[in-house]
Amino acid sequence: MRHPLAQRLVGELKEALDAGDERELERVLYRFSSVDVAIAMRQLGDAEREAVFAALEVQEAAALLEEVDDETQAELQQTVDEKALTEIIEAMPPDERADAVALLNDRQADRVLELMADEKSEELEKLLQHHPDSAGGVMTPEFVAVPEGVTAGDALKVLQAGVVNPETLLYVYAVDEDDRLVGVVDLRELVTADPAAPLRSFYVTPVVQVTPEVDQEHVAQLCKTYDLLALPVVDEDGQLLGTVTIDDVMEIIDDEATEDISMMAGTDARELMRKSSLRVAQIRLPWILVCLLGSLFSGFIIKSFEVTLTETIVLVAFIPIIIATGGNSGLQSATITVRGLALGIVQSWGVKTLLLREVFTAVIIGVVCGATLGALAGLWAQQTVIGWIVGLSLCAAIMMATTLGAVIPVVLDRFGIDPAVASGPFITTANDALGLMIYFTIASSLLTVAAQ
Amino acid sequence: MRHPLAQRLVGELKEALDAGDERELERVLYRFSSVDVAIAMRQLGDAEREAVFAALEVQEAAALLEEVDDETQAELQQTVDEKALTEIIEAMPPDERADAVALLNDRQADRVLELMADEKSEELEKLLQHHPDSAGGVMTPEFVAVPEGVTAGDALKVLQAGVVNPETLLYVYAVDEDDRLVGVVDLRELVTADPAAPLRSFYVTPVVQVTPEVDQEHVAQLCKTYDLLALPVVDEDGQLLGTVTIDDVMEIIDDEATEDISMMAGTDARELMRKSSLRVAQIRLPWILVCLLGSLFSGFIIKSFEVTLTETIVLVAFIPIIIATGGNSGLQSATITVRGLALGIVQSWGVKTLLLREVFTAVIIGVVCGATLGALAGLWAQQTVIGWIVGLSLCAAIMMATTLGAVIPVVLDRFGIDPAVASGPFITTANDALGLMIYFTIASSLLTVAAQ
Repeated sequence: MRHPLAQRLVGELKEALDAGDERELERVLYRFSSVDVAIAMRQLGDAEREAVFAALEVQEAAALLEEVDDETQAELQQTVDEKALTEIIEAMPPDERADAVALLNDRQADRVLELMADEKSEELEKLLQHHPDSAGGVMTPEFVAVPEGVTAGDALKVLQAGVVNPETLLYVYAVDEDDRLVGVVDLRELVTADPAAPLRSFYVTPVVQVTPEVDQEHVAQLCKTYDLLALPVVDEDGQLLGTVTIDDVMEIIDDEATEDISMMAGTDARELMRKSSLRVAQIRLPWILVCLLGSLFSGFIIKSFEVTLTETIVLVAFIPIIIATGGNSGLQSATITVRGLALGIVQSWGVKTLLLREVFTAVIIGVVCGATLGALAGLWAQQTVIGWIVGLSLCAAIMMATTLGAVIPVVLDRFGIDPAVASGPFITTANDALGLMIYFTIASSLLTVAAQ
Repeated sequence: MRHPLAQRLVGELKEALDAGDERELERVLYRFSSVDVAIAMRQLGDAEREAVFAALEVQEAAALLEEVDDETQAELQQTVDEKALTEIIEAMPPDERADAVALLNDRQADRVLELMADEKSEELEKLLQHHPDSAGGVMTPEFVAVPEGVTAGDALKVLQAGVVNPETLLYVYAVDEDDRLVGVVDLRELVTADPAAPLRSFYVTPVVQVTPEVDQEHVAQLCKTYDLLALPVVDEDGQLLGTVTIDDVMEIIDDEATEDISMMAGTDARELMRKSSLRVAQIRLPWILVCLLGSLFSGFIIKSFEVTLTETIVLVAFIPIIIATGGNSGLQSATITVRGLALGIVQSWGVKTLLLREVFTAVIIGVVCGATLGALAGLWAQQTVIGWIVGLSLCAAIMMATTLGAVIPVVLDRFGIDPAVASGPFITTANDALGLMIYFTIASSLLTVAAQ
């Protein structure tokens, strides 16, 4: 994606920085939004980024930190002293404040919380208690709540009085005398409603809501399913704690997809933002090495069938085909199952429907591919028995890989493990070894029969 | 994800359907939202779905069709006659109307457009001209536009007069005398503004906007980057044509991620919604067969080195390791590059930075893995030369696969081809053949040297 504005900004920033002209730098920064500055930052060197950050006022610095990626944010937060940092963090909305403090080391975090105004640090400590990937961890404690008995006009006036964060201005929540959430009104309906109408006459109830420990992926799915711009978070008593807003939901959707995609490839989403090869290699190597050691099993299997292979060397030529085709079919069913679990499709169909579908699909694909390759192999080797060995093995390897590809993610999900792990190199490595085992077992049996 | 409401609804619907009690069926449906009915639909049989759909009023039927997946929508649209269908489609917002007509065959679509009120069918035909994955294809032609000279109070009154689709009520667009878009005001700011203030004094300009042919992925990225709840679409003259709203943006984000994930696994996102094994097999088989035929090249390569292999049969044991480890490293770099392209990270870094990072990473991973496996292989085979052959080959295969994994998606992207294709089975198949070629070339050279 091109950002023409950010592109122009990079040029102007570099010019001002090269000239060492602070006034010009400030003038340039004043003309662009923090979103554009954040995008431009990615194309600046470390020293340039630091100089730009130093040139910003407290409010602008806070806005910028919200927009840059975590790595850059952590880096920039280290360039100012703790007092200045506390001021910048105080200028953020509460959910962003929690994210900013989470990026500091323990000593710095304690120091910032100490320096912060008491009521802000208390609120912050409460937010920091939640798991960062839970509803509590992504919510902001800001919202507009009114007693359930008021009129539309009263509610609109409360809204107009304003809270800090405009993202939380999209809904008005109606609460009872015990502060329990009882209804919700969309700002768009409030604006078009008769001001004298009691809120109770048109608020929506029951309200779609979650408790703080609910996983952020579930939060995102609820917002998508019910087309919500913010989702209320309540405690066990039904008292409103905060809201998760749509900008966070979009980030969650992207993050969860990136996480799944990375894990499927046997790596980590964090490497996406790293520019250093050494760090990237550190993230990727463990996955590669584990699978490399796993592949040694395939080597052992081949080694133990060495006699058969020496006698019928043409069998070696089909090893990559058995491995690759089994691997590909396993990858297909594992990936579709993982995605189906992430989007909630598998759960609403029921696991039995999914597994039956995969087993029947496995049979169809196995038979078609086995027959095709069996015929080709028989012709190529000019030996019917080779055709049968290769065809049957491929058919069996595909059926096994496809079925395992669907079963393993479902089982992992049941045990609370992220199913995306199963769709990566691990399942391929396991399929390789199992496929070879099938191949050689069928080969030695049929060759013995043919020799008799 | 569990939907407790939808779960309860399934039970109640099945009861009413089994009893053949139409009044009770209507009573049940009346109590639940169309979102819940859509979720419940997935667990009903074909005949049950049809009966539920038939029990809905026109407005409810339209709302339901918006919520169900495309396959179910196409199916349900076939259960009513063209006159009833036209009424239902007319009750939808314009962008949904276009989607509904796109699911019909040409003859039915023509018939529905004929039966529809003239101004609606004209609007619809205009929308249907845009590519379904472009800004024009996902936008709705509804929006609130006011002359740029009005006050905040005037603008609010126009909003309160109301348009049909509440999703389009989040922004007011200011236009000049030639209907060109000049500024935008957020509903939340309008509500809190002084009614007497001229709109011009606080509207945001320049407006983030797109032309209709812009890809939907870019639309989603702009909305995410600038935290927008709707993005205006304008023609070349800058005249407002429509808006893409946040609910569509969230669908785009999910669809694009699903598309990338499916393609990486060598299959098609459409299979996610299919329950029939035969249809799923039809979607998956072409990918598998193409790769199966591609793997035959690996077979040919092995066949042409048959003499070397017969002499040194231990080399066969390392074939799966060379293939699998090369494949895994290629998959890692391809996947990260594809995701980086999709999220716009690669573009903002510049391609050179990415490629340099991948090449250095390739060297590090190649050397570490090559040295590890080389030492293990030398010990296992009790032959130093085997250690050197396997180690050097693995190192070279990893470096090649990792580099290709990053280069190919970038090249495809340049040529306007979806880079996700490169991260699927195709690249693995190519890496298999190249890896084997490297392995056998190094093996025959070193074995010749060792024999001298």
